[in-house]
Amino acid sequence: MPKNIFYAQSGGPTAVINASAAGVIETARQHRDIFGKVFAGQNGILGALEENLIDTDLESDAVIALLKQTPGAAFGSCRKKLKSIEEDEATYKRLIEVFKAHDIGYFFYNGGGDSQDTAYKVSQIGEAMGYPLICIGIPKTVDNDLMLTDNCPGFGSVAKYMRTSILEASLDVKSMAKTSTKVFIMEAMGRHTGWIAAACGIGATKPEQPPHIILFPEVAFDQQAFLNKVKQCVDDYGYCVIAASEGVQDQDGKFLSEQGSVDSFGHAQLGGVAPLLANMIKDAHGYKYHWAVPDYLQRSARHIASQTDVDQAYAAGKAAVLAAKNGINNMMMTIDRTSESPYQWQIGQAPLSEVANHEKTLPDNFISEDGMHITQACQGYLLPLIQGEAYPSYKNGVPDYAVLKNQCVSKLLPLIEG
Amino acid sequence: MPKNIFYAQSGGPTAVINASAAGVIETARQHRDIFGKVFAGQNGILGALEENLIDTDLESDAVIALLKQTPGAAFGSCRKKLKSIEEDEATYKRLIEVFKAHDIGYFFYNGGGDSQDTAYKVSQIGEAMGYPLICIGIPKTVDNDLMLTDNCPGFGSVAKYMRTSILEASLDVKSMAKTSTKVFIMEAMGRHTGWIAAACGIGATKPEQPPHIILFPEVAFDQQAFLNKVKQCVDDYGYCVIAASEGVQDQDGKFLSEQGSVDSFGHAQLGGVAPLLANMIKDAHGYKYHWAVPDYLQRSARHIASQTDVDQAYAAGKAAVLAAKNGINNMMMTIDRTSESPYQWQIGQAPLSEVANHEKTLPDNFISEDGMHITQACQGYLLPLIQGEAYPSYKNGVPDYAVLKNQCVSKLLPLIEG
Repeated sequence: MPKNIFYAQSGGPTAVINASAAGVIETARQHRDIFGKVFAGQNGILGALEENLIDTDLESDAVIALLKQTPGAAFGSCRKKLKSIEEDEATYKRLIEVFKAHDIGYFFYNGGGDSQDTAYKVSQIGEAMGYPLICIGIPKTVDNDLMLTDNCPGFGSVAKYMRTSILEASLDVKSMAKTSTKVFIMEAMGRHTGWIAAACGIGATKPEQPPHIILFPEVAFDQQAFLNKVKQCVDDYGYCVIAASEGVQDQDGKFLSEQGSVDSFGHAQLGGVAPLLANMIKDAHGYKYHWAVPDYLQRSARHIASQTDVDQAYAAGKAAVLAAKNGINNMMMTIDRTSESPYQWQIGQAPLSEVANHEKTLPDNFISEDGMHITQACQGYLLPLIQGEAYPSYKNGVPDYAVLKNQCVSKLLPLIEG
Repeated sequence: MPKNIFYAQSGGPTAVINASAAGVIETARQHRDIFGKVFAGQNGILGALEENLIDTDLESDAVIALLKQTPGAAFGSCRKKLKSIEEDEATYKRLIEVFKAHDIGYFFYNGGGDSQDTAYKVSQIGEAMGYPLICIGIPKTVDNDLMLTDNCPGFGSVAKYMRTSILEASLDVKSMAKTSTKVFIMEAMGRHTGWIAAACGIGATKPEQPPHIILFPEVAFDQQAFLNKVKQCVDDYGYCVIAASEGVQDQDGKFLSEQGSVDSFGHAQLGGVAPLLANMIKDAHGYKYHWAVPDYLQRSARHIASQTDVDQAYAAGKAAVLAAKNGINNMMMTIDRTSESPYQWQIGQAPLSEVANHEKTLPDNFISEDGMHITQACQGYLLPLIQGEAYPSYKNGVPDYAVLKNQCVSKLLPLIEG
């Protein structure tokens, strides 16, 4: 008898997480003998806890196909960390109740490090609580910081967006530098890892090619060396372009962005390492500056997604279903690089227990000696991930993004307090 | 005898100003009997004043064609306001010297309001100082604030970028709103006019469609009404997305972005109406927020340019050369809308004297009654301008942007002090 699938999206969305969803749903639809319905959790694991199960059978094949080109998390996502079974058995009992009521035998959880922790904890209910459940993690994070996978679906597209954006803005700044803006700073996501900032440097292999400076959370910020390099760039090239991780930290490990700006009411001013660096440069050198904080624009920029990334996101979703079909359990799907040049990859797998709660930072040999750029090894790693243009179709001048019904099945259990 | 052309780019670059340059150069090359070389001013009018004249004949047809897909100002731009002939005759004498030395009979100036003022002033040297010169203005500004033209080359592309970006980020925010960010604010360029902010609302014709709120410099900011509407949106839709012009002003006409943030050293903190609004919302309602300031990314985003915009930018450059050929003088090329539905346009012209130093703000009937969104009339105006996708070609995963030699001809005059 076919069992139903519970699939959910967790943590910050990416431009391609819905491609993984399409991979899951389309593949499950091809194996109706094994899989029943795909229920999508409304807002991640909350959908299971609150019994808000979206019936994806109500969505047409055409709409599911459109998911491949739609950013955001189409079924809603969440930030929610589960306690362990020992600490909070009630939550897991509730999950089992919901799974039983809706005949759910498969649990696919699509997310980053925290989310794989959720998947890992849920995977334990089989052994610890006697409910037979196949649990598969599907990787997703723009931060590219999951262990045991060569890269993470979502990262290739943000990398392509950031590299293209800083290239474009650099042409702009260079045009104007003679009489106007001389310094441009773009802030990249990444509180603990510098992968996105690093991607800004793809193809910039000569000192004169922007960005001239890249700042990573992995390297303690050296203000004087930074200011010296800014001046050197303006002297040598007429302008200076900087990519800075939001998570740049001082020598004591304190985030620069948390250092002391206050608004007119004396409240701490949150955020923006870019404006902070801009002020620092202005104070030291007096250069006219501009800064950009693309924020969510970067992780939702489906209009300039990497084809490689879309393919891998879809493949990871598809592989999760096929793995479950083959009796694989308690694993996260991975992207394995089998060759760098020419680039080749395949889907692999790694135990959820080993993936959860670890963070992969930039390796030392990816960061240049002065700590402010990337190495050739890093270039070799990054370049394949941004290859190919996966344009969405357009309607009325803007991308045609999927609109789902997102209708939940009737609840079978008594309401609980959220 | 053919006379040479002086062409220059002025003010902030756009994604398509180089398409106008291509229109000028390709058209001039087709009429070698009338036009000699096209000299491009290095950094706008400065190129003429400093006799830095780029010889575009050294660039291949292929590279000139590539200009159509390259953002920034390929020959360098400047911010430089000329004094009048009466106030500063020496400058104009110098211009005539350079023009004479290099046999320049045509002056094409590609820019916005300030730049058309330059074109207008230079056009006066014919009558006032007896140097025969044909002067044509080529419109360009992301701000879309030039008079007597229906729209400005550069605007359609920034409009397409901003609309797409806020649509994408809105899908992201909506996904997460249940447990995380509920308010997202994107800052749009436009100190005096709200055209770019308005473009964020293209296609958002129902109250639930983001952006839910648009703030314009044309409407005095009403803090209480704004905060009420934010709360209403979060109550009704679960989240609220806001597009805010950088030039939003309070009831006294003071920029919000200049209101009083200071950094930890007590320095005035420049910029960012988005973070300011975010803090205001947090103080009033406590919502978790994110904000984005795309800054130069928006005006250089050639990767998502509007085909309509690229076509019009090219046509304006081409028309300038043909107008000069036909003896037209002292005019700026314009884009005239001959039909809105179906959209049809043609190139027209307007006297430089009437274009210079005026600013076209959003008309009243383009702004909704509550002052925080756009009307159907505005939708009808904006929608045609973002139609069509003019993808650049890609190389190694990023757009293949033109790299010019930008070699200046030998100077024939004694050096002057800049």
